[in-house]
Amino acid sequence: MPKIVDHEKRKIKIAEATWKVIVDEGLEQATVRKIAKVADMSVGSLRHYFSTQSELFAFSMKLVSDRVRNRAENKYYDGPPLESMQELLSEFLPIDEERRIEMEVWMVFSSKTLVDPNLKALSQEVYDEMHRASKMVVEGLIESGLASQALNKSLEIERLYALIDGMALHGILHPDRFSVEKMQTTLKYHLKALCN
Amino acid sequence: MPKIVDHEKRKIKIAEATWKVIVDEGLEQATVRKIAKVADMSVGSLRHYFSTQSELFAFSMKLVSDRVRNRAENKYYDGPPLESMQELLSEFLPIDEERRIEMEVWMVFSSKTLVDPNLKALSQEVYDEMHRASKMVVEGLIESGLASQALNKSLEIERLYALIDGMALHGILHPDRFSVEKMQTTLKYHLKALCN
Repeated sequence: MPKIVDHEKRKIKIAEATWKVIVDEGLEQATVRKIAKVADMSVGSLRHYFSTQSELFAFSMKLVSDRVRNRAENKYYDGPPLESMQELLSEFLPIDEERRIEMEVWMVFSSKTLVDPNLKALSQEVYDEMHRASKMVVEGLIESGLASQALNKSLEIERLYALIDGMALHGILHPDRFSVEKMQTTLKYHLKALCN
Repeated sequence: MPKIVDHEKRKIKIAEATWKVIVDEGLEQATVRKIAKVADMSVGSLRHYFSTQSELFAFSMKLVSDRVRNRAENKYYDGPPLESMQELLSEFLPIDEERRIEMEVWMVFSSKTLVDPNLKALSQEVYDEMHRASKMVVEGLIESGLASQALNKSLEIERLYALIDGMALHGILHPDRFSVEKMQTTLKYHLKALCN
């Protein structure tokens, strides 16, 4: 079905152009006209794929979570448990240019979820998904005997999840203050602290 | 100097109108025209106080950090150390409507710091200030003998600061998932964990 593939490819190309405009110039500049220009197509053809800006934004935001999820799911975790968990959680941190762009875009869209119901639903889905990932890590540490049964599981999940998102935020907004190395060391320190 | 007082008061009134437009409708809707309307003045008088939108945004963002700092500094901390620290750190969390609005506005402006150098400088100042507050808490716990000397001070500061901002983010974006009570309990749990 080459036509369907092409259709999806074009949508992704438009979404990536949207990311680029957001990262370079900010969300206010992300008009359909400018995005079409960056995607090298006419406003008319763009409208063929997305009839409203809100639809385009929702797809562009979803592309971030799809990419992150795919990477996290398709990675082969074969190291010791603590290292595997560090690797998994690092997928949610801006540890390289690709992830930094994705998370910057995610952050910009997140601040828009407060006033755009279309984006809000996706934001909540991803919140729940990330919450489950944090749960998996905390339960994994306990079940493997690395962390104590006596931990307060529910609070450890909230703590881990908030720590990850806080580090991502600091890494995006203040890469000169909070380097990738600091991010990784702090995460490692936290996981080890759970195992004391 | 009644004139100077009035001048400052008017600027604050305009900044609060800016907050209101941002919280209700989003940053893209925060045009000078709309803000003037909400502040109940003409575009001309608004321009008398702020000649550019960027200046107005910088002042409005700064008003958030000034308010938070004033509250944190003028509070009387007279309880046991752990409780005082919980109280201090709670000033940086959306624990009530007033703080929720401030932090929502802060978050929206933060995502704009990525493309607006005027806002970037303030964002870095506040990052450093919050970093110092986290340092004060971690050092305070160690010096009072509540936390062990053996803690990795520098990583504990990064961890505490990221945890606070991550919780604030979750509290603003997902108040239905991450309630004020959960926020407070998680913070208390973390401070206690430092003292084990």
